[in-house]
Amino acid sequence: MKQFTSVHDVTDINALVAEALQLKQDPYAFLQLGKNKTIGLVFLNPSLRTRMSTQKAALNLGMNAMVLNIDKEGWALELQDGAVMNGTSVEHVREAAAVLGQYVDLLGVRSFPGLTDREEDYSEAIFNKFVEYCGVPVISLESATRHPLQSLADLITITELKTVARPKVVLTWAPHIKPLPQAVPNSFAEWMCRADVDFVITHPEGYELSKEFTLGATITHNQDEALATADFVYVKNWSAYEPYGEMPGLDNYNNWMLTNDKLISSNNAKVMHCLPVRRNLELSDEILNGPHSIVIHEAGNRVWAAQAVLKQLLENLENQ
Amino acid sequence: MKQFTSVHDVTDINALVAEALQLKQDPYAFLQLGKNKTIGLVFLNPSLRTRMSTQKAALNLGMNAMVLNIDKEGWALELQDGAVMNGTSVEHVREAAAVLGQYVDLLGVRSFPGLTDREEDYSEAIFNKFVEYCGVPVISLESATRHPLQSLADLITITELKTVARPKVVLTWAPHIKPLPQAVPNSFAEWMCRADVDFVITHPEGYELSKEFTLGATITHNQDEALATADFVYVKNWSAYEPYGEMPGLDNYNNWMLTNDKLISSNNAKVMHCLPVRRNLELSDEILNGPHSIVIHEAGNRVWAAQAVLKQLLENLENQ
Amino acid sequence: MKQFTSVHDVTDINALVAEALQLKQDPYAFLQLGKNKTIGLVFLNPSLRTRMSTQKAALNLGMNAMVLNIDKEGWALELQDGAVMNGTSVEHVREAAAVLGQYVDLLGVRSFPGLTDREEDYSEAIFNKFVEYCGVPVISLESATRHPLQSLADLITITELKTVARPKVVLTWAPHIKPLPQAVPNSFAEWMCRADVDFVITHPEGYELSKEFTLGATITHNQDEALATADFVYVKNWSAYEPYGEMPGLDNYNNWMLTNDKLISSNNAKVMHCLPVRRNLELSDEILNGPHSIVIHEAGNRVWAAQAVLKQLLENLENQ
Repeated sequence: MKQFTSVHDVTDINALVAEALQLKQDPYAFLQLGKNKTIGLVFLNPSLRTRMSTQKAALNLGMNAMVLNIDKEGWALELQDGAVMNGTSVEHVREAAAVLGQYVDLLGVRSFPGLTDREEDYSEAIFNKFVEYCGVPVISLESATRHPLQSLADLITITELKTVARPKVVLTWAPHIKPLPQAVPNSFAEWMCRADVDFVITHPEGYELSKEFTLGATITHNQDEALATADFVYVKNWSAYEPYGEMPGLDNYNNWMLTNDKLISSNNAKVMHCLPVRRNLELSDEILNGPHSIVIHEAGNRVWAAQAVLKQLLENLENQ
Repeated sequence: MKQFTSVHDVTDINALVAEALQLKQDPYAFLQLGKNKTIGLVFLNPSLRTRMSTQKAALNLGMNAMVLNIDKEGWALELQDGAVMNGTSVEHVREAAAVLGQYVDLLGVRSFPGLTDREEDYSEAIFNKFVEYCGVPVISLESATRHPLQSLADLITITELKTVARPKVVLTWAPHIKPLPQAVPNSFAEWMCRADVDFVITHPEGYELSKEFTLGATITHNQDEALATADFVYVKNWSAYEPYGEMPGLDNYNNWMLTNDKLISSNNAKVMHCLPVRRNLELSDEILNGPHSIVIHEAGNRVWAAQAVLKQLLENLENQ
Repeated sequence: MKQFTSVHDVTDINALVAEALQLKQDPYAFLQLGKNKTIGLVFLNPSLRTRMSTQKAALNLGMNAMVLNIDKEGWALELQDGAVMNGTSVEHVREAAAVLGQYVDLLGVRSFPGLTDREEDYSEAIFNKFVEYCGVPVISLESATRHPLQSLADLITITELKTVARPKVVLTWAPHIKPLPQAVPNSFAEWMCRADVDFVITHPEGYELSKEFTLGATITHNQDEALATADFVYVKNWSAYEPYGEMPGLDNYNNWMLTNDKLISSNNAKVMHCLPVRRNLELSDEILNGPHSIVIHEAGNRVWAAQAVLKQLLENLENQ
């Protein structure tokens, strides 16, 4: 693997999952691989799971990790080409990215969407500038439109815990109080559409994801129908793709929050969420505290997802 | 040792002190013990000594340390069970703690009291949620009511520098401009009540600590009487336990600041403070710049306190 | 080397440059030298290059690096001796520095000038308190009046890329929208005045640097004259030394921004900048995106500058 920015960078997702599960069995088997190699983890937005799990994955491979919250510890970046920088931004992303690339072997980057300009967000304007200018392989720590480390951890979790050869996996929209990015559902959808699962997406009218990510999925506005016979239920809020970043009809959809009652028709479904989750808004206490929830297990698998990806990126470096 | 949240977790405080002093002589003797082990250091409040000394202690044992200022680098945590999370908190402590526990072998947690609701603070509501949900051994980096790593470093310092078999140790209240927690004096008191010292607490009327921590101590409102023949004087401000978090009669107590004059009747006492200290408010320049002060030496011992605790926690992990 | 706070701490700058270039060829040759040694990197001001490159340099030598953004992760420091600390500062720099010195073998410190009180800034009041009280060798990560790690990286870069034995090096003032410190130009000047180069400084009237740093340099207000036959052009804004921290006549000097046209008379000059740089204000896009610019290469050399300095400081520790 040369970089890890989306599922399109992965030759064989099943082989990558298998590698992750092997690493989970023997986390320190490749401590020599990362010797004297350094990953920079650059955050333009907050992080808990991604930061800690990727650091741990790097350590498991013998790498060093250097974390930089660039907005808080550094300064505001200029993102527009051609700008006359006489305002508040102190450094252009061209220089910041290129300089960081001088100090690390791999660069992880997190950058959220603004949710106001769809074209800009979906062009991955910020993230792709890091890719273009840093000069080293980039690993996405979540970008404006995708969160592939999360999706890989999700597929690892499903592979690990499935009880049938081809499980039914349902992605269901959940209420929230503020507009969230489409990155997690986009990414989950494009991974599930390539996985050996029956994949169903359910959401209220107006919350259709971009077709680019959902090709091959069954899409329905009927949550009950979707949940019937589900083996895995992935819960997530997202804002609308059109009108972009809005939450049309939100007040009518409080009943989309998942509860135990809604799971009765499922195949004793396991409930997933990328976290952080707003309790009793996105997901009820009864689900999160009960036997359906596998969200902590899922979060734990973030380490093995990151480690499998880092391992393949390091191996590619070695072969150059 | 299975966790380190108070003196009650320690079987033999003298053995723990002895171990710390041995580590001080040979800091790198157990570099293999922490191999491939990771400690997470989670701060809900600022830190200098605790963070740096615990990181150093972990490195001395061959461990990796991952630091997370969760409020600044992450987001606000919800602490109330059953809350409908439609406000500003982004993640419940149940998930945050449980997820962190997936990425580390030991978890250090710092959480200060609010000083408004005594029952909540003294139930250690926040800290204990981390203990309950993280699933790995927890080490207190200071909680609402205790700071045991500090107290252990204090006992190490007294043991190291005492010139009589059973020194007289005086904890004296000092002025401050704002209400501070009782964590350091509580913790110091409960360690000293178990140590081989004559322990005296002196403070103005109204600043009585909770009896839970001071059983066995001599308590007096007469500072001069307390300081007479003292071998060690531990200076610290704290706010009242009742009325909780207030500073009754504060304006009358400026003369409680320690000076050289006040130490004349002592046994050439050594002066201690957990730091940070407000000069010329809690402690005079003449003390801090003079031969009585051992505050820097004391701060240095924070490394060996942390290292002895981490060593015992690691050994317990190995035996599982 | 016993400390690294200015060029005056270096016995032989050419030998130090040679050592840096050797380390660049073989970065991990001295992995044993830093074993069990720790450097603390304390920032009172933001950083990207300095922090990341010094961390990387430390890792290359087998050291551990602990980073502390003391203002953001800790609290406000009191800098005045004798202060009654009843305001907002929580800890005196005397204690903070001395305590940090207990936890590390080397201490890196970054502290910017206030640009209001020249005497205070040029006495290095803050930085020197760290030097005085921390008790371990200090390495400047940029102080009020100097940035020696940057200057060493600059000299490494010039040595590496020069095409004549004694190149002409021009430091040229550039426009900016707010007053910047003189640290980088001061430091660059005092290093170049000791290097085997023809050194010219050009700036508008009123931007004379302190003579303490520029002894031996040719100084001119004619930018065109200065740039003629230049081999290296170092671009940097700085505010006035007198009246201190001001930007006299700024509106008249927009034409001081470097462009390709201005370089026609140069010896195909290589253009340098310490970064961060404000595009199209200090330096035009055409320069930064074109073949003249070596700013990224220069930033990359920050690693080898820091590593050479750390190596010499570690060797001095060993010999004690």
